[in-house]
Amino acid sequence: MTKAKAGSQTVKVWDFIELEWKGPTARNPFTEVKFGATFTTGNRTVRVGGFYDGAGSYKVRFMPDTAGEWRFETYSTVTALTGKAGSITALDPDSSVHGPVQVHTPYSFQYADGAPFFPVGTTCYAWTHQSTKLQDKTVSILKTGPFNKIRMCVFPKDYSYNKNEPEHYVYEGAPGAFDFTRFNPASFAAFEKRIAQLRDLGIEADIIIFHPYDRWGFATMTAAQDDLYLEYLVARLAAFRNVWWSFANEFDLMKEKTTADWDRYFRIVQTADPYQHLRSVHNCRAFYDHTKAWVTHVSVQHSDVERVDEWRSQYRKPVVIDECCYEGDIQHNWGNITAQELVRRMWETTVRGGFPTGHGETYLNPDDVLWWAKGGILRGESPARFAFLRKIMEEAPLGDLNPERVGRLHPVLAKRDEWFLYYYGVRQPSIFDVDLPADANFVVDLIDTWEMKVTRLKGTYSGPTRFELPGKPWMAIRAVRKG
Amino acid sequence: MTKAKAGSQTVKVWDFIELEWKGPTARNPFTEVKFGATFTTGNRTVRVGGFYDGAGSYKVRFMPDTAGEWRFETYSTVTALTGKAGSITALDPDSSVHGPVQVHTPYSFQYADGAPFFPVGTTCYAWTHQSTKLQDKTVSILKTGPFNKIRMCVFPKDYSYNKNEPEHYVYEGAPGAFDFTRFNPASFAAFEKRIAQLRDLGIEADIIIFHPYDRWGFATMTAAQDDLYLEYLVARLAAFRNVWWSFANEFDLMKEKTTADWDRYFRIVQTADPYQHLRSVHNCRAFYDHTKAWVTHVSVQHSDVERVDEWRSQYRKPVVIDECCYEGDIQHNWGNITAQELVRRMWETTVRGGFPTGHGETYLNPDDVLWWAKGGILRGESPARFAFLRKIMEEAPLGDLNPERVGRLHPVLAKRDEWFLYYYGVRQPSIFDVDLPADANFVVDLIDTWEMKVTRLKGTYSGPTRFELPGKPWMAIRAVRKG
Repeated sequence: MTKAKAGSQTVKVWDFIELEWKGPTARNPFTEVKFGATFTTGNRTVRVGGFYDGAGSYKVRFMPDTAGEWRFETYSTVTALTGKAGSITALDPDSSVHGPVQVHTPYSFQYADGAPFFPVGTTCYAWTHQSTKLQDKTVSILKTGPFNKIRMCVFPKDYSYNKNEPEHYVYEGAPGAFDFTRFNPASFAAFEKRIAQLRDLGIEADIIIFHPYDRWGFATMTAAQDDLYLEYLVARLAAFRNVWWSFANEFDLMKEKTTADWDRYFRIVQTADPYQHLRSVHNCRAFYDHTKAWVTHVSVQHSDVERVDEWRSQYRKPVVIDECCYEGDIQHNWGNITAQELVRRMWETTVRGGFPTGHGETYLNPDDVLWWAKGGILRGESPARFAFLRKIMEEAPLGDLNPERVGRLHPVLAKRDEWFLYYYGVRQPSIFDVDLPADANFVVDLIDTWEMKVTRLKGTYSGPTRFELPGKPWMAIRAVRKG
Repeated sequence: MTKAKAGSQTVKVWDFIELEWKGPTARNPFTEVKFGATFTTGNRTVRVGGFYDGAGSYKVRFMPDTAGEWRFETYSTVTALTGKAGSITALDPDSSVHGPVQVHTPYSFQYADGAPFFPVGTTCYAWTHQSTKLQDKTVSILKTGPFNKIRMCVFPKDYSYNKNEPEHYVYEGAPGAFDFTRFNPASFAAFEKRIAQLRDLGIEADIIIFHPYDRWGFATMTAAQDDLYLEYLVARLAAFRNVWWSFANEFDLMKEKTTADWDRYFRIVQTADPYQHLRSVHNCRAFYDHTKAWVTHVSVQHSDVERVDEWRSQYRKPVVIDECCYEGDIQHNWGNITAQELVRRMWETTVRGGFPTGHGETYLNPDDVLWWAKGGILRGESPARFAFLRKIMEEAPLGDLNPERVGRLHPVLAKRDEWFLYYYGVRQPSIFDVDLPADANFVVDLIDTWEMKVTRLKGTYSGPTRFELPGKPWMAIRAVRKG
């Protein structure tokens, strides 16, 4: 983030610049003052909502997607914030920066600059609501971990293993006496610090906007309060290139909200977000209708990942399996599968054309710090396997992959005639016949997804070929066209 | 079997007596002569179809279910076989003999004498079509194995790993030139020898009447030929107390046959069978409508055994999982899961109120003798675990068990307030809270279903109790009311 007064400043493409003006403080600036700025380069204009940051400070954050000069001019319902103009210069991004993640139609993701993106994700719902020390620990673990996406809530969580009060509240006031029309800028500053850290680590922040596990009233605000919150979130967070919008964790458990409410939330964000970050919503049981135009991808909670290709066909959008039970040993069914089973589900997801974003960890420990809720340290055996899966897939021709022959024999993820990935899960064939294209030679690897070993088979292969396998579970075969 | 001439002979209840008369040999006795006998004790009469056994020999087999004198008299469309009368005396059965298995309404099985029966089954489709030496080997293995039910075909099988010709054919003639109106008594004698051996080992023979894997024409006979075959089968086999009728393996793959055909087959056997042996039909994909009155229980092929309680509720009959993929290492998906996964599916089936009859084994071997097809020896790790499961369940209050709280938390198989079996599968909780009834003390066992260990926890338990588990998969907890 480049902090700037109104005037000519520079910012790198896909970073953001924050422009600040002083304005009215009387009554309630959060609800009474409309304010923002337009940014223009050449004949193109981007309209960006601003936000009140307390203490008379009004801000606009802008993330340019194109290098060059951008002229800006503020608009507002108050004179003091109207017509402030100037320009900024957007410079080329660092080579490591690829912009926001977008859908690569129809079934995959890529960065704004066209670089492929294969999401490998985890969940730490309330990690930003823990102590600063614990949050720092979580960041240090994420830094070395395999994940490039994390699911996290704006609001704190009230649930098993989640009984502590947060460090900050989104609203002014205190439990039992919140003012849902006045935001607490300090809470956002702390939250944004973490989003910026994730961004700098190359981790997408899948921001969960609402959720049902609430004792503070955040799940049961009025429609007007919900809408105010959405506008404020977008104004503050959209300039972070790594933001994804997840309208809820388990939307279907929020009984006060109707389908019309969820539709409206999507449309508000779709209209307000200058950058069109990814948008979806996570279910408990019933799915939201992901065919709706404002949904960019399908966020799924489901144990039966063998249905990934069905959902892909049903919704014609990328399918991310954000939850399929976590590795752990608590007694809740959603949090006690083995690492082997979680890894199996994520490979199965992958070869059926979905994305393995369902990591989470729920091991009991004396400190009562479970990764899925609070972050902290990782104790399980699956993260190393997620890293291995990510490495395998980042070597693949992402964007051209489709599951073939699903339902018959084994699923195979393939780029037709060029790249094939067979996965066997708990199946343990000791032979396997593959019909490779006869017009080219393929190099073939035997992959042990649990032992994380890739064994290159001798020679090259072409046409119908019988492979021998070790007769143990969790194996895969990869065949890649060579010249 | 007691062989008897017409006259007073003795037979034990649930064994059978075979009565024989000489009759016409001209033209086709199989189709032209109707013949049978009525057996009467007190005011009760049982009508039993007879069969032509070749060489002018006509036979009736009768399995009494009640001790005492039974008078008989033959009936026929020919004079020579009409009105032959006499009596037999049925004696009390040996203490080890409990009679045919019946449905214990609504969801379980029991023997005719009321003794409980918990089916633990395997499949050897074509074992009686192998060499005599191999069949003898199979019997010797079954003798020491855990299975009390076996799925087996009347007809030979044409399929992968099943290319050899059978020792005998059901019909006169030879491949390409069978007479589907003339049976081959020698083939039945050989088949019946094996059914009798199974009976004497306490193993139910789940006789598969039709199947689609055919190169001889047995799957595509005319309706009249099918019906003749059904009548002949019942006349020969119904007197074996251990017979179950399975109208098909994968009925839905037999495209020449309609639902009306299957309905008719059921009704023919339902009408002809004096003993009302169990009747069902096995599917590939689509289920037969098991709600129909003539279906006694639900025979399922499906991998997703988590649906057992759904099928139970849907059909209101006992659910046997006859196929859910076999332990093995062939490349077909239905025959290459790990022993761990097969055992998990069978425990999952059990705690959801179904029955674990889905053992089968498909390990490649140089002799090309795969248990699932041909019998022979068992190579896998699951049979010992089937034995363990059977032992655990035979200690249970069978007949009063229902799956409770399925869908919420973990399934538990329970006799209300008295007996509970929790199973965790690939889940590995290290604590688990159980609400035991507060008005009694329970003894509790920790069961390792893979290691086959039962560990009695110290003391007794009552009311809400938290158990500690080892945090590994495939565990179960059993709580039994003690006084």
